[in-house]
Amino acid sequence: MPQPALVLLTDFGTRDAYVGIVKAVLARLAPESRHIDLTHAIPPGDVRAGAFTLWQAHEYLPAGSIILAVVDPGVGTSRRAIALRLPNGFGVGPDNGLFSWILDPVAPVEAVELDPARLSPGAPSATFHARDLFAPAAARLAATQTLADLGPPQAEIVRLPPPLLEALPDGLRGEVLWIDGFGNAVTSLGRMRAAGDAFEFSAAWQDHRPRTIRPPAVRLELPSGAMLPLARTFGDVPAGEPLAYVGSSGLVEIGVHAGRADQRFNLSPGQTVTLHLEG
Amino acid sequence: MPQPALVLLTDFGTRDAYVGIVKAVLARLAPESRHIDLTHAIPPGDVRAGAFTLWQAHEYLPAGSIILAVVDPGVGTSRRAIALRLPNGFGVGPDNGLFSWILDPVAPVEAVELDPARLSPGAPSATFHARDLFAPAAARLAATQTLADLGPPQAEIVRLPPPLLEALPDGLRGEVLWIDGFGNAVTSLGRMRAAGDAFEFSAAWQDHRPRTIRPPAVRLELPSGAMLPLARTFGDVPAGEPLAYVGSSGLVEIGVHAGRADQRFNLSPGQTVTLHLEG
Amino acid sequence: MPQPALVLLTDFGTRDAYVGIVKAVLARLAPESRHIDLTHAIPPGDVRAGAFTLWQAHEYLPAGSIILAVVDPGVGTSRRAIALRLPNGFGVGPDNGLFSWILDPVAPVEAVELDPARLSPGAPSATFHARDLFAPAAARLAATQTLADLGPPQAEIVRLPPPLLEALPDGLRGEVLWIDGFGNAVTSLGRMRAAGDAFEFSAAWQDHRPRTIRPPAVRLELPSGAMLPLARTFGDVPAGEPLAYVGSSGLVEIGVHAGRADQRFNLSPGQTVTLHLEG
Repeated sequence: MPQPALVLLTDFGTRDAYVGIVKAVLARLAPESRHIDLTHAIPPGDVRAGAFTLWQAHEYLPAGSIILAVVDPGVGTSRRAIALRLPNGFGVGPDNGLFSWILDPVAPVEAVELDPARLSPGAPSATFHARDLFAPAAARLAATQTLADLGPPQAEIVRLPPPLLEALPDGLRGEVLWIDGFGNAVTSLGRMRAAGDAFEFSAAWQDHRPRTIRPPAVRLELPSGAMLPLARTFGDVPAGEPLAYVGSSGLVEIGVHAGRADQRFNLSPGQTVTLHLEG
Repeated sequence: MPQPALVLLTDFGTRDAYVGIVKAVLARLAPESRHIDLTHAIPPGDVRAGAFTLWQAHEYLPAGSIILAVVDPGVGTSRRAIALRLPNGFGVGPDNGLFSWILDPVAPVEAVELDPARLSPGAPSATFHARDLFAPAAARLAATQTLADLGPPQAEIVRLPPPLLEALPDGLRGEVLWIDGFGNAVTSLGRMRAAGDAFEFSAAWQDHRPRTIRPPAVRLELPSGAMLPLARTFGDVPAGEPLAYVGSSGLVEIGVHAGRADQRFNLSPGQTVTLHLEG
Repeated sequence: MPQPALVLLTDFGTRDAYVGIVKAVLARLAPESRHIDLTHAIPPGDVRAGAFTLWQAHEYLPAGSIILAVVDPGVGTSRRAIALRLPNGFGVGPDNGLFSWILDPVAPVEAVELDPARLSPGAPSATFHARDLFAPAAARLAATQTLADLGPPQAEIVRLPPPLLEALPDGLRGEVLWIDGFGNAVTSLGRMRAAGDAFEFSAAWQDHRPRTIRPPAVRLELPSGAMLPLARTFGDVPAGEPLAYVGSSGLVEIGVHAGRADQRFNLSPGQTVTLHLEG
């Protein structure tokens, strides 16, 4: 039985040795655990981008994974450091909402505030909690799989508002959440699942009563006013042509076959998009 | 006896969590296998660049390695997904020629078309086969080391034409294959091996009757018409000076001592270069 | 008992497969050892940047770690290839000073010159010693933990001068050593440790008789002449405001709360900075 995997997400980049130093601490304290890097290229301080990436990845993680997530514009302020139970393991990081979108929004959270005295031999640095506080806590969790000895219980944690996703009389309104490395724009629309020829979609981020839509009787309106058909995949349109499609996370994405949609349509996170359900 | 290594090459970049998600799936399904990243920075959709990099790396991989290679401009079209036997293990990826240059061009290939029904619990997404199809297949291969249960046999696979390498009356014609991170241009010329003071070279990519050349009685003609002597290594010319040399893959490279040859000579993949054998 | 960790630092970047090939060789020869990447983004040929990064990271490495460090502008010249004992394990790399700042400057060094005949089955390439010489040596060390069979002893190795750090009548003079990914400038000043409300600092890089300073009775003079107060951390100044603070390595850093100090003050490595001790 291998030890729980340690899953890392940060905005540290990989130019500095900061990520390497965190992994060195983890390897020292939890020598049997594998490290999985989700990304270290979250835009600096962009907690929502981190929350989205964790949401996108979390269901694929090995059971019992311990996520060490650090996007922490408030390091060195009074923001708290926490560990918490997640649906599929544990999380460790700043208490700023990073884990919001993988938590059940109505269930109570099981969390503790990290107690430096229990985790660091010396005083933790004011600016590198990942090394001095979060990594020791994550390594401890890999061994014990219990929150209790990391610090006092904390009844509430900071929560981000969910991504924009609201029902309109004849459609759905959402937002661009992320531009990926291929230039595709991932939106908050739909949390869709394939159902034969059609898709089941949700009309709210936490909706559990999906409805059904059927391409191509659906069109996506971009911020520019352009309307794109909902296609199955890139191969459904000629090279150079744009399309909307249900991406690998079940969200509507905007792409250009063999091109970059972000540049073509000047897309960026936070822009509003509308799905018109004409079917 | 450790489990076979899982070797990754993609054009996904490391800004998104796509690579991390693939590794999470691999860690879940093949928890004892090590991951080795060759690169995730293949230019998007550049199958030849991926094929070159696999060729460059494959002889150094641990015996039995399973290569998960995804440079896949045709995802979501009718291109097939395959697994195949390689000289030193197995490969998994799209059937678009990525593995061409590490296969014997005349021997029959042992390959299967991946059957999603045997590999994915649900339907694979249309755009993320690395997560839903290739990673499960690679993990299965790590455990079983047999192709048979992944899908039906496939007698032929897509092959790329080999890199340009042809004999001239008094030399060799080749092409620039890759610009590396130091600005050195790797060409297709020669597949050379050191032989005392001289080099043995091949006059075709699959040639097995090497001939012998002896620096410096050799000159490389660049696309600009510039002629460079074939030197042993950077230290043979003053700082700032250009040279041709036999690089670490046995191919003639173009470099500038303590500088960037790509910028100096405006080099890019696909350009023709000529080696003049005057000796 | 896990095998010693193999810790990598290079200037190879991660676009090429060079790092992946080195790891493949390591995995083949030392299959039980974990790999920890410190960074592969040292500016090409910048030995001082590599030395700083190793200094910053080394005390966090697992006991017995073997550091494979390659920033090697002299590859292919007569510079020697070495392995040496470090305070916390071993190092392997070019003999150009990379390991200087983690060695005791007065104690004798225990080093060997790598003998290619003992490490490479064929002749090592002239340009990729990391693959052909350093990785085999590091793998051998992981198994044997002894230098003796890698090559002949070498009484002296190349040493870099230490970072600038000198006492002034009323302060300390130092230099900018590194700009990190957040735009913070790490200086050579002080090697400070928290001591209650104050800091103990060193007036020379190898000083072992620290003195005490107490913020905010201290000011840092930048190359531009600007004077910054020494603050505890980012939260002590408003967003957009600059500060000096003792960073996570015990060195004075220059930052901007929620901004980039390198751009604001046009900072780069090698610039002189002065700490005025007014307290």
